[in-house]
Amino acid sequence: MTDSKARIAILGASGYTGSELLRLLLRHPRVEIVALTADRKAGQAVADVFPQFAPFSLPKLITIEQVAWKDVDLVFCALPHGTTQLVIKNVFETAPHVKVVDLSADFRLRDDGAYERWYGHPHQALELQQEAVYGVVELYRDDIRKARLVANPGCYTTTAILPVVPLIEAGAIEPEHIVIDAKSGVTGAGRSAKENLLFTEVTEGMHAYGVGGHRHMAELDQEFSKAAGRTLSPSFTPHLVPMTRGIYATIYLKTGAGVGAEGVHRVLADFYKSEPFVHVMPLGQVPQSRFVKGSNMAFIGVVKDRAPDRVIVISTTDNLMKGASGQAVQNMNLVLGYPETMGLEQIALFP
Amino acid sequence: MTDSKARIAILGASGYTGSELLRLLLRHPRVEIVALTADRKAGQAVADVFPQFAPFSLPKLITIEQVAWKDVDLVFCALPHGTTQLVIKNVFETAPHVKVVDLSADFRLRDDGAYERWYGHPHQALELQQEAVYGVVELYRDDIRKARLVANPGCYTTTAILPVVPLIEAGAIEPEHIVIDAKSGVTGAGRSAKENLLFTEVTEGMHAYGVGGHRHMAELDQEFSKAAGRTLSPSFTPHLVPMTRGIYATIYLKTGAGVGAEGVHRVLADFYKSEPFVHVMPLGQVPQSRFVKGSNMAFIGVVKDRAPDRVIVISTTDNLMKGASGQAVQNMNLVLGYPETMGLEQIALFP
Amino acid sequence: MTDSKARIAILGASGYTGSELLRLLLRHPRVEIVALTADRKAGQAVADVFPQFAPFSLPKLITIEQVAWKDVDLVFCALPHGTTQLVIKNVFETAPHVKVVDLSADFRLRDDGAYERWYGHPHQALELQQEAVYGVVELYRDDIRKARLVANPGCYTTTAILPVVPLIEAGAIEPEHIVIDAKSGVTGAGRSAKENLLFTEVTEGMHAYGVGGHRHMAELDQEFSKAAGRTLSPSFTPHLVPMTRGIYATIYLKTGAGVGAEGVHRVLADFYKSEPFVHVMPLGQVPQSRFVKGSNMAFIGVVKDRAPDRVIVISTTDNLMKGASGQAVQNMNLVLGYPETMGLEQIALFP
Amino acid sequence: MTDSKARIAILGASGYTGSELLRLLLRHPRVEIVALTADRKAGQAVADVFPQFAPFSLPKLITIEQVAWKDVDLVFCALPHGTTQLVIKNVFETAPHVKVVDLSADFRLRDDGAYERWYGHPHQALELQQEAVYGVVELYRDDIRKARLVANPGCYTTTAILPVVPLIEAGAIEPEHIVIDAKSGVTGAGRSAKENLLFTEVTEGMHAYGVGGHRHMAELDQEFSKAAGRTLSPSFTPHLVPMTRGIYATIYLKTGAGVGAEGVHRVLADFYKSEPFVHVMPLGQVPQSRFVKGSNMAFIGVVKDRAPDRVIVISTTDNLMKGASGQAVQNMNLVLGYPETMGLEQIALFP
Repeated sequence: MTDSKARIAILGASGYTGSELLRLLLRHPRVEIVALTADRKAGQAVADVFPQFAPFSLPKLITIEQVAWKDVDLVFCALPHGTTQLVIKNVFETAPHVKVVDLSADFRLRDDGAYERWYGHPHQALELQQEAVYGVVELYRDDIRKARLVANPGCYTTTAILPVVPLIEAGAIEPEHIVIDAKSGVTGAGRSAKENLLFTEVTEGMHAYGVGGHRHMAELDQEFSKAAGRTLSPSFTPHLVPMTRGIYATIYLKTGAGVGAEGVHRVLADFYKSEPFVHVMPLGQVPQSRFVKGSNMAFIGVVKDRAPDRVIVISTTDNLMKGASGQAVQNMNLVLGYPETMGLEQIALFP
Repeated sequence: MTDSKARIAILGASGYTGSELLRLLLRHPRVEIVALTADRKAGQAVADVFPQFAPFSLPKLITIEQVAWKDVDLVFCALPHGTTQLVIKNVFETAPHVKVVDLSADFRLRDDGAYERWYGHPHQALELQQEAVYGVVELYRDDIRKARLVANPGCYTTTAILPVVPLIEAGAIEPEHIVIDAKSGVTGAGRSAKENLLFTEVTEGMHAYGVGGHRHMAELDQEFSKAAGRTLSPSFTPHLVPMTRGIYATIYLKTGAGVGAEGVHRVLADFYKSEPFVHVMPLGQVPQSRFVKGSNMAFIGVVKDRAPDRVIVISTTDNLMKGASGQAVQNMNLVLGYPETMGLEQIALFP
Repeated sequence: MTDSKARIAILGASGYTGSELLRLLLRHPRVEIVALTADRKAGQAVADVFPQFAPFSLPKLITIEQVAWKDVDLVFCALPHGTTQLVIKNVFETAPHVKVVDLSADFRLRDDGAYERWYGHPHQALELQQEAVYGVVELYRDDIRKARLVANPGCYTTTAILPVVPLIEAGAIEPEHIVIDAKSGVTGAGRSAKENLLFTEVTEGMHAYGVGGHRHMAELDQEFSKAAGRTLSPSFTPHLVPMTRGIYATIYLKTGAGVGAEGVHRVLADFYKSEPFVHVMPLGQVPQSRFVKGSNMAFIGVVKDRAPDRVIVISTTDNLMKGASGQAVQNMNLVLGYPETMGLEQIALFP
Repeated sequence: MTDSKARIAILGASGYTGSELLRLLLRHPRVEIVALTADRKAGQAVADVFPQFAPFSLPKLITIEQVAWKDVDLVFCALPHGTTQLVIKNVFETAPHVKVVDLSADFRLRDDGAYERWYGHPHQALELQQEAVYGVVELYRDDIRKARLVANPGCYTTTAILPVVPLIEAGAIEPEHIVIDAKSGVTGAGRSAKENLLFTEVTEGMHAYGVGGHRHMAELDQEFSKAAGRTLSPSFTPHLVPMTRGIYATIYLKTGAGVGAEGVHRVLADFYKSEPFVHVMPLGQVPQSRFVKGSNMAFIGVVKDRAPDRVIVISTTDNLMKGASGQAVQNMNLVLGYPETMGLEQIALFP
């Protein structure tokens, strides 16, 4: 598949992760978009749903049933969780040659008990759940290269995992004392018409939600516990902030004896020194969510708190990019054997 | 002074706390605005600086030197910190009958060493520093009634003190484990023309600032330590969020043995059950900053975290109202013997 | 009814004009809120729908059928157009003593043909349509005082009518050359959950809508034509701007011979010199929508264009206040014989 | 210069048009950035000024005097107007081989009297003023290819010229009746720290400015008059809208006899049918500024007004892209003989 183009389908192309995939893939030199689905909008042109694509040539929106799977090499699945697991099971039965990058939550939890506990029903594709690789590229790169099914992680979790997991693994922090105060832009909630997401209900104010019980905790628990070798349940509070894009996680940590903020910074700077999409700022510098808007970058800052054993780590990503579609394309590049940064070179749009 | 009107001066009337005082005092039935200062804009009409006041009759902006102190009963001082202490010292020397509500940070710290440490220079009015009463009304109401000089507290600190101090005093939480993740609207930074406060630098993104060293920590330390009877230094991180008004504090606490979220909620609900400006929501409900915008209310929510000894308390105020000018008028009402809620009855402007 | 309180019902209390009425009426000294309806949310507390009202005592939401009309003196009708006409017809049949201020579009057009043409169905309460008084207070004050049914005008139309009608009547402009480019905040679209009103679809961008055919044109045509004595059809384009409140109308006019901007300004300054809620700025000054946010004021500016016979008039209101609920309370005050400004004294909330 | 890279300097790299040029040029395959100036920030790294560029290798900021002109092939000049003309004069004297794309207003007006009238002082590089080519690519492509100095047009003017000039040239409209109501995002005002551009002064409201006398009128007059063959002075009112990027021009036109909206649409659709960066929507469709954010596209819509001889044309661009830096790179591509769309393929960032 040297210079040929992979044939790509997107299931659920009328949402925001779908449109972000289109934005990226239309400019990716090694892919061809062959199928786009949106069940409720089937028959419409993409430009009817997202007029910014009007100048470009794209297939019409169809239903999932109408996809010609034999002509598809890789599919991005951007459907709601719960329904995704059966859809993907069917895809593999119909077309075992297809690779899948799934942006839903359906295959992120390796433990089926955890899935049932957080999502309220038994998983309906248990074998695939076991097979799926959790797609935080910087932690699972080698597994992803060999994967048939990549479970693209959540935006909150990617943003928190990137700094915290290497610190747990290095023994630099006390894993029982992790407080993650996370703030999200509104695209994180998707494109569904809900009263609480109206402009007038979101602008000029902010609030926490899912306090004490947001589902992304399940992913945090899984990855933090795996890194620590014992069960952890960090404090995690998500907030909705009046901005379109961006996850901003302020993370309060206790350092191990004699580590301090310098030690924490050293671990992260070393861990990410060759990574193209993770930028660890100099010690004491604080990132802004704007620095990553529209790009696939994560920016991480490390700052001393007042007590010598306390450190504040701040991590920020664009929830539609490194937090969703950007990481999904990064995963696709690995699965297809392409250079990892291909099609993801855009620089943040700030201002 | 039964039905007569107190004669009011505002020093620093061209900033946002100044305009908010004007908005409130123009509709307060027992005051008359007799002097407004703005050194750099002296000679201009208020309507040149804040055109929304054009339909109302107000004195011209003058310099501080031009104020006729004998005709003033009470002055609001909305000047930058550092310069305020000498100004107020002079006011008292010139006109000992005048009462002062100071919105700067100059008289908030009772300990002169703490002042010097946080503000980098010795205090220049030490006796007044000792005399000043810290103006969180709900905690110091009786002292304020008798005060000549009220130090109106900071917006972050008011928002955090209201829920946390009663909990420390009740022994309901472990005071060594307090993490305050606070978010502020942009008016908190005042009206000075700085590049980092431009619309284009603030909108559509967010960031922490003053991490590990914001000056409002000094007030938190003072009040939390006083409540606990020992020195505390809580974690506190302020953030700038793209909204005009609002402080939103997400506070991570550890409860004392056998207390739990229910116990925390009970302490707060009891403590504030008769307070007109503090509303404790039912257990498990989460406030939004919009619920208090433009009003003098604080809304407090208490939510269980996943571990039985962890609780998340959320407190929100309008930084220009309960966090500054609203509380200043509340203090004025006490100092002048007026009903505490007079002129502060406005309901939040949402949407 | 000297110092007694009028008993008020609000039909459709769960929308934005409803909540704005609550905000105003809770602080109005001469009214008592006795009934609030919201058909789909009947049984809920107001605080469930608008938590900012939690600290206040208010009746529960009920259905329209549950209203005890004998205990109601005046009703605000904030229901969708089309359904309103029958509801009000029934109210008058059930309780002829009740006065009505209707915030829908149902009774704004005096011509039943015009109604049918713009709304696509025959009017179902033709007699009431004839009886209703169009509630632009500054133009129809005397009629409103005697009215039983006031048709509260649209936000766009109020904002445009205030400057344009007196100019047409004075013969100061050529009524065939009127271009109104109007911009609205998002509350103008109400609280219904529609995809195109999501934060993510509205923020950080703008667009025109209803180009060449917005229904508020019908009111403009009616009032402009009445003033001119002949049929007019001005150009009018509404736009949606990412702000919560505010109508901002930029109006391009041709002046009559020898009038010029000075003449236009003189007509408006004279016409409104005693009006409490209309502020005509000095010639050449330009209003901002912020100057009226949260207040019942209209601000009007007059500026010369480059050609001597061209003038640009700019008018701005808060669409929920002077453009809806504020004007509705102003109308109520007239109908009930109260001072016209009672309960409407709030000053704009800026910043 | 087949596959070699042109060596590029940017004068004034610390402003928003500067950062936008960096965003584009860092990903342009045929350029190398060799010099960046910012007089007041000389000595700093670009990442100190725009941290989003921290992950990339870029030259330090220097003063204009420090530029090694012999190593520069083309310079973008993003300096304030007034100072630019002498700077460029000096560049040409020092290094005649250098090509210039100037983003200031200094060389946009061909008539030196017009320049002096609008800018208040005589032009100081009159010969260059005559030599400069006005850089609306779609109108002056052939001249630009041969130019040494391109005067990149203003954002408002580009947005208005694109639809209006072809219509004037085709005789489809009456050029005496042009009303342009234009709205701009805040980046159009640049990065200077001014009180009226603070977040708190811009968000949640809007206003007109420069009414009757904005300098972009000079460019409109020039290009419209040239197209019409006689002197025109259209009505043009700019507004500041709370969004970062975007120009949105609502243009009220009178059509020539028998033309109508259909005729207007046909002229524009034909004129732009092969243009990569101008998209004329189907008749009756209305663009949104979001559809072009972050891209170099202009979207144009044509809608019938109520009278048969009136038409409303709406044109929108991203003021930093097609309105400034994007068009500047498009001009650079022409000057250097590169494919016109090179480095400008990004699709709009919406949401």
